[in-house]
Amino acid sequence: MEYIVYLSGEIHTDWREQIREGVAEANLPITFYSPVTHHESSDEVGVEILGEEDKPFWKDHKSSKINAIRTNSMLQQADIVVVRFGDKYKQWNAAFDAGQAVAMGKQLIVMHAPELTHPLKEVDAQAMAVTETPQQVVEILKYISQP
Amino acid sequence: MEYIVYLSGEIHTDWREQIREGVAEANLPITFYSPVTHHESSDEVGVEILGEEDKPFWKDHKSSKINAIRTNSMLQQADIVVVRFGDKYKQWNAAFDAGQAVAMGKQLIVMHAPELTHPLKEVDAQAMAVTETPQQVVEILKYISQP
Amino acid sequence: MEYIVYLSGEIHTDWREQIREGVAEANLPITFYSPVTHHESSDEVGVEILGEEDKPFWKDHKSSKINAIRTNSMLQQADIVVVRFGDKYKQWNAAFDAGQAVAMGKQLIVMHAPELTHPLKEVDAQAMAVTETPQQVVEILKYISQP
Amino acid sequence: MEYIVYLSGEIHTDWREQIREGVAEANLPITFYSPVTHHESSDEVGVEILGEEDKPFWKDHKSSKINAIRTNSMLQQADIVVVRFGDKYKQWNAAFDAGQAVAMGKQLIVMHAPELTHPLKEVDAQAMAVTETPQQVVEILKYISQP
Amino acid sequence: MEYIVYLSGEIHTDWREQIREGVAEANLPITFYSPVTHHESSDEVGVEILGEEDKPFWKDHKSSKINAIRTNSMLQQADIVVVRFGDKYKQWNAAFDAGQAVAMGKQLIVMHAPELTHPLKEVDAQAMAVTETPQQVVEILKYISQP
Amino acid sequence: MEYIVYLSGEIHTDWREQIREGVAEANLPITFYSPVTHHESSDEVGVEILGEEDKPFWKDHKSSKINAIRTNSMLQQADIVVVRFGDKYKQWNAAFDAGQAVAMGKQLIVMHAPELTHPLKEVDAQAMAVTETPQQVVEILKYISQP
Amino acid sequence: MEYIVYLSGEIHTDWREQIREGVAEANLPITFYSPVTHHESSDEVGVEILGEEDKPFWKDHKSSKINAIRTNSMLQQADIVVVRFGDKYKQWNAAFDAGQAVAMGKQLIVMHAPELTHPLKEVDAQAMAVTETPQQVVEILKYISQP
Amino acid sequence: MEYIVYLSGEIHTDWREQIREGVAEANLPITFYSPVTHHESSDEVGVEILGEEDKPFWKDHKSSKINAIRTNSMLQQADIVVVRFGDKYKQWNAAFDAGQAVAMGKQLIVMHAPELTHPLKEVDAQAMAVTETPQQVVEILKYISQP
Repeated sequence: MEYIVYLSGEIHTDWREQIREGVAEANLPITFYSPVTHHESSDEVGVEILGEEDKPFWKDHKSSKINAIRTNSMLQQADIVVVRFGDKYKQWNAAFDAGQAVAMGKQLIVMHAPELTHPLKEVDAQAMAVTETPQQVVEILKYISQP
Repeated sequence: MEYIVYLSGEIHTDWREQIREGVAEANLPITFYSPVTHHESSDEVGVEILGEEDKPFWKDHKSSKINAIRTNSMLQQADIVVVRFGDKYKQWNAAFDAGQAVAMGKQLIVMHAPELTHPLKEVDAQAMAVTETPQQVVEILKYISQP
Repeated sequence: MEYIVYLSGEIHTDWREQIREGVAEANLPITFYSPVTHHESSDEVGVEILGEEDKPFWKDHKSSKINAIRTNSMLQQADIVVVRFGDKYKQWNAAFDAGQAVAMGKQLIVMHAPELTHPLKEVDAQAMAVTETPQQVVEILKYISQP
Repeated sequence: MEYIVYLSGEIHTDWREQIREGVAEANLPITFYSPVTHHESSDEVGVEILGEEDKPFWKDHKSSKINAIRTNSMLQQADIVVVRFGDKYKQWNAAFDAGQAVAMGKQLIVMHAPELTHPLKEVDAQAMAVTETPQQVVEILKYISQP
Repeated sequence: MEYIVYLSGEIHTDWREQIREGVAEANLPITFYSPVTHHESSDEVGVEILGEEDKPFWKDHKSSKINAIRTNSMLQQADIVVVRFGDKYKQWNAAFDAGQAVAMGKQLIVMHAPELTHPLKEVDAQAMAVTETPQQVVEILKYISQP
Repeated sequence: MEYIVYLSGEIHTDWREQIREGVAEANLPITFYSPVTHHESSDEVGVEILGEEDKPFWKDHKSSKINAIRTNSMLQQADIVVVRFGDKYKQWNAAFDAGQAVAMGKQLIVMHAPELTHPLKEVDAQAMAVTETPQQVVEILKYISQP
Repeated sequence: MEYIVYLSGEIHTDWREQIREGVAEANLPITFYSPVTHHESSDEVGVEILGEEDKPFWKDHKSSKINAIRTNSMLQQADIVVVRFGDKYKQWNAAFDAGQAVAMGKQLIVMHAPELTHPLKEVDAQAMAVTETPQQVVEILKYISQP
Repeated sequence: MEYIVYLSGEIHTDWREQIREGVAEANLPITFYSPVTHHESSDEVGVEILGEEDKPFWKDHKSSKINAIRTNSMLQQADIVVVRFGDKYKQWNAAFDAGQAVAMGKQLIVMHAPELTHPLKEVDAQAMAVTETPQQVVEILKYISQP
């Protein structure tokens, strides 16, 4: 089966590239989707395309909705959703994506350091795998992609 | 219409009581659901009922899943889901609930301080109202409950 | 069967009252839902509860979303959706409600003057009845409520 | 991701061509669907294929239903639905399409002049972007199509 | 469990009354729905409420749609759909109801004489019980209503 | 859009071939599905593959279910379902397919002679087009396949 | 919240009564559903109501389908499904119920002795709680029924 | 139609190969999916990728969930699910897959020896074909793949 995998969450390390490279080396027929991971353009896209806003709330609102056109479409097409939580920032969008994925019947894989186990327990509880490293995700994808 | 409203998120202030009281005073035909908000029993329920665990991960896992029996059932029955984010803790379960609610087609109301606008922009973007106080939620419930 | 009927659309004549009265006289076990039909409070509710806006767009946006909490919940609960189009105003919200109703599998009844047949042809095409008067809707409700 | 975008609404200006051209220049992997935009053949198709009608209502009815075979199929396949409202005509079919799109979980982009903000507030409230020009839609499609 | 049972199909014998009576005698908590079974009013309702038609097709069309408001609503609410085929008439509406019921995930019980086995084989194939008499349906309802 | 069209119903005339040929001549990107239309093998397939039965009911049952593997899969994949009713036989399977198609949200086209209007009124009422000839279906498919 | 709990699986011990009694003592607002647990009448119901069969396969087939009218209806209404596996018999129907429950989005609680952990690992993996005794189920129901 | 067929259940004989070979010889356009059928790697995958566990329950849990990423994805994509029950082991995962398949609207084919008819009666009751040999499955696939 040719899986579609959506890579959601933390955007400050190269975990997506590590997964893509590991999968490319193994030559697996997997398609990856991801959000726009360029922080600045993701924050500015709303006002850049649709016009300036005085209030930060509406600026954020316009950007988030344009990003949601992409992320909602990708979530709906994906078979598997991988969500990584880093050690910084609130990352509520990552948990929000995880909630949507589960309610849509997608297979959820979570990635985070062991220190985050307690605050992520509700997300982990509905995941199919809780990993710590991109390599573990690659191993899972290799395993489930066997002929 | 007699709404069912699920009150999700922050458990350290009395915001749920304020909403319930405001609605009771207005005599509105609204049923409220909420998660178990007693932090300790919520954390311990898994090992208390199902037996001890050595690893914190599995202790959390068992508790979270028992709590999910309640929260998933309530989310499915609710018409409206109110999610409050406080100023402390990670609160990823709150964002996870919000994601599930949106994907299930529920009407989402978010409550948080203005300082949290930027990290909550993706959640706010798919909400029907972004409030700051329990009184505002009461006002919305009054407004939509007019005959 | 005890139907739930949502009365959507035009808010400047007393068509809803005529239907309610006709049904009450016939003593039918029908529950009616309707949007908030007080034009001013419907337009102002967003800024009144959630705070002022400089731009008309965001003022409208906040109000429309609060109204959508009510209308979306009612649409989801309804068995039958009656949408009336009057001879004034754009009434795009009425057509929007009709589209949602059809996609949700609800039974759609449309009410409008014959002069509006051509511009409403796509809405009428997916309706179960196209009426001109509240009395016709009452007659339909009587007919389908026979024991 | 290769999006499917349905272009609904106003048929009297060349906004669809502008979007198609802008996307073609940017070489994006997007498939566009649109209704039959030739007004006369769209109005006549029912009686031309299925036989004459004396009453305008049934003439319109037959045509609208044949057109709905196309538009319903396209709405179901689309990821994104763009609906443009012009400054003339009732355009209730456009609002009806928007309502169906939202209820089907599609990502809605609306396009209209600022003068139409108030009557379109309920439609805008459930859209992911409210644009004024085809160029803005092209910019959004470019942004969400980044690798 | 308190079942809702929709009794569809043949309207020229008293099979519905026999089932209702058998169930009433057994004092079972079952709610029965049925279409309007008065043939003439069912055929005339469209033109009587919505106005005359010259062509038989449109006369039938208007009546069938008004009847569908009732039957579609009942099918959606029902747990169990019983469809009886008699020995006369085409009864395509009965088979049509059966098809809708199966696709909606309802439990289908069919009732017909053994002579109709071959032409009804596709309907029977997706039914949970194929009966010949109202008494058998009553027995099934008694059996499944045990505490 | 490249439609998938399921051709259901009457198997004793060459209407399917006429539609396929008309569409092939017009070079339309349409995929056709159809049930197994060889009457004898369709009736015998159950006992031939799965073993003999003494009772006609079970012989029919086994065959119908194997045929349903095909027809259910095709109905689920189709965008449009064309159902033709001939002038002979009960054809309840055709009406059953039509009911399933409508409940699955497929676009239904019915084909039958005018003499069958009254007994087919409930099926016609939920169809998007009621045709009399294969040529009319071809014309509809040409019309909706315009670029 | 007033939960509906379906008690599926093993029928040779009094585990259902223990759960019902524990819940009754705690005065919880829970409604319990269960299959017909009288083994003989469950096996015989098909031929008793619908007529004798020579082949055991068809005898079983008719009974199982009548039982499915009850169990499918109850599964669809339930919020929570408890499935107990005993130490005897194949109990494939229990695992089949569990599979249906999970695919329908119900909250699954499994009950079995520790010796059955390995063969039940796939079922346990998608459960919200894996218990060993009726008392544990009662404790969970008490916990999630707190106000 | 190009079917996707998921081959679930017993992993100790070569029934999957027999079906694949029979279908390859007949040159049918069918795609087959199957679980990981290497017993040891399937049991060990959880601890191998995600780390050791002391308790057998959690070892099994981690493996089963990783396997579920594959099997759930395949079940969702499949048109037809074939489940074989062998004469050894509990095989509750096979019955669990069958339950999920039915609830997802997939066409179920069961394969087992006649001796297992009674314990599998509930599964068989909701299947579209009950076979005993791989050759019978091949014959069914040939039959339904006719042009």
